Amino acid sequence: MENYLDNLPTPALVVDVAGVTRNCRNMKNRMAAHGVLLRPHMKTAKTVEVGQLATDAGVGAITVSTLAEAAFFAEHGFLDITYAVVMAADKIAEAADVQRRYDAQLTLLLDNVETSRAVAAAAARETARFATLIEIDTGDHRTGVDPCAEELIELGKTISAADNLELRGVLTHAGQAYECKSRAEVAKVAEEERRGIVLAAERLRQAGFVCDVVSAGSTPTAVCAESLEGITEMRPGNFVYFDLFQHGLGVCGLDDIAASVLATVIGHSRAHNHLIVDAGGIALSKDKSANRFFKDGGFGWVVDALSGERIADLRVGEVDQEHGFIVSDTTVPFERIPIGSRVRILPNHSCMTAAAYSCCYAVDAGAGRVEGVWRRVGGWRWP
Amino acid sequence: MENYLDNLPTPALVVDVAGVTRNCRNMKNRMAAHGVLLRPHMKTAKTVEVGQLATDAGVGAITVSTLAEAAFFAEHGFLDITYAVVMAADKIAEAADVQRRYDAQLTLLLDNVETSRAVAAAAARETARFATLIEIDTGDHRTGVDPCAEELIELGKTISAADNLELRGVLTHAGQAYECKSRAEVAKVAEEERRGIVLAAERLRQAGFVCDVVSAGSTPTAVCAESLEGITEMRPGNFVYFDLFQHGLGVCGLDDIAASVLATVIGHSRAHNHLIVDAGGIALSKDKSANRFFKDGGFGWVVDALSGERIADLRVGEVDQEHGFIVSDTTVPFERIPIGSRVRILPNHSCMTAAAYSCCYAVDAGAGRVEGVWRRVGGWRWP
Repeated sequence: MENYLDNLPTPALVVDVAGVTRNCRNMKNRMAAHGVLLRPHMKTAKTVEVGQLATDAGVGAITVSTLAEAAFFAEHGFLDITYAVVMAADKIAEAADVQRRYDAQLTLLLDNVETSRAVAAAAARETARFATLIEIDTGDHRTGVDPCAEELIELGKTISAADNLELRGVLTHAGQAYECKSRAEVAKVAEEERRGIVLAAERLRQAGFVCDVVSAGSTPTAVCAESLEGITEMRPGNFVYFDLFQHGLGVCGLDDIAASVLATVIGHSRAHNHLIVDAGGIALSKDKSANRFFKDGGFGWVVDALSGERIADLRVGEVDQEHGFIVSDTTVPFERIPIGSRVRILPNHSCMTAAAYSCCYAVDAGAGRVEGVWRRVGGWRWP
Repeated sequence: MENYLDNLPTPALVVDVAGVTRNCRNMKNRMAAHGVLLRPHMKTAKTVEVGQLATDAGVGAITVSTLAEAAFFAEHGFLDITYAVVMAADKIAEAADVQRRYDAQLTLLLDNVETSRAVAAAAARETARFATLIEIDTGDHRTGVDPCAEELIELGKTISAADNLELRGVLTHAGQAYECKSRAEVAKVAEEERRGIVLAAERLRQAGFVCDVVSAGSTPTAVCAESLEGITEMRPGNFVYFDLFQHGLGVCGLDDIAASVLATVIGHSRAHNHLIVDAGGIALSKDKSANRFFKDGGFGWVVDALSGERIADLRVGEVDQEHGFIVSDTTVPFERIPIGSRVRILPNHSCMTAAAYSCCYAVDAGAGRVEGVWRRVGGWRWP
């Protein structure tokens, strides 16, 4: 057995160390050039090692999508954590526990007066105090208040009046960037995002509130924004691995995709012109987002396990729970990919694909060498 | 806090104990009436407790979709296990380890001569011996050999000639049942499945091979088959929980769906007529299969957390990673579902949805009482 490709159990999530390192360096340089803090979102990688690569101090400021991530990263020394999902009062006990146990600082998100009062009351019961940001809707229409809304000032008052909450600033996520079709469109959304969040910050300041944090960003807007003036921090997450969707959007090259699924060929069906691999709907996720850009996107593209080069037009055309069907518009090159051999599959959406794995293998993909096993924090509970 | 709905962390996978118990009893009765063994597929529940409910002896014969499931169930006393994904030679060391460690019997699936030889050689290197079944393609065209193919007899010869393999019979999965639109269509597929697998068994017997096991079945075909003559065992899995897809297909009632996702309402957007819950693409999966039957299927239907009754036409219309958008064709009843309240979401495809959770809460849903926490075996490694 010459290299890792013969040894790893499949399906496996593999991460190319050189790729993720380069992606992190590029984003750090980009944010430094704009003069803003990179507060990377750990929702994609969910590993300490990527957190270390993506922050300057090694254990710098981060963003998380679950309180399990908050606890996991705090346990590993990341003590400045923004939980970027609007807070619910019944999650306060758990958030307070993370702060107490690790002496960490969690920053929470609020977007309405009623919840803010309930969160403040819950924090008081826990004798905990939380930094908070007001979530602003800059066009995604998910959560958050309109930058022009009266409620923004109401929220400023409610939070400032609460003993157990401290208002630090505003936060937005221009998720509508994921509806774009090109970098040029994303650049426009990035400017909408910037104008909206800066306007909200200015309104709060004019009303007499502190607004030190002006937080924005997704991977597309962080990559494509021309100006970040007035913004203090950006929170991209997907950039550590990228994926076929980001490639389709023009946000990364195919070579920048640093995460893939290693799979074993378990069947040939010449009669039906497909290969079967042991990576199915759970191993790849059922996310088909990249099909907006690639009519042959399927559930991911098939690349050579070592070189990372796409093999013909092969993609995972269909999935069952533990089976992936690799198809082609012409004839599948069965001879090149015998039963028992291995391929890698580039994911449509790396956040969703990675979610199925409790660890990833950090590899030098070109050399076929495993350099480490990185634990991932999945689900909604840690430990 | 009166009941579990106020106490469980969300998102959470909840399983109604009465529902899963009834689903298991009904399937056991159905298979007993046909005179065939129920070898339930653990791919859906992946919990010991459901394995105990679904088998007669408490730790009876089961089917698994991963070697992690095999190891987990063997550790808990289930010693007669069929691994129903066609075997790869490089998984033999792991399979042998499960047999040795727990004194279990794994039955493996083979569908081509080349792999059979490689698997036999790997088994010899491990000084292990495996029971095997030949996989038959009865119309799904995934893996397996055609019941009429010459290769079937070749495979019989190859396996019988291998010292470390024992030929026990044949196995099929009529996955095309999932392409059907009604019970009547499923009943036809069930008969195709039966005829195909019985034909394969007869051909092997006529050629002088033992064929004691004639294994078939999916949930749709197990529910809808009129005759199972010649079949010795059935392997449905989804029936323990069912889901919106099976309901759309006519295979279960809406009341039979025993697994759902408990979520907290974290936002109201009256301007955009949606609610936001803390169950998104990871918590629900991105499986939209039930949309074939229900134009308003979305990513799952919203039901009252206690009664289980659907709330108006509410469904999860869109998902982000940790956000679900609950929408309606009319006006969302915001007053009925305030921020901070909880709902349950019926999954499109319970196997995929459950895969995101490392445990499920076994509840008396109507009473709102938690009766236990059932550990799930996820991923591809155990322990």
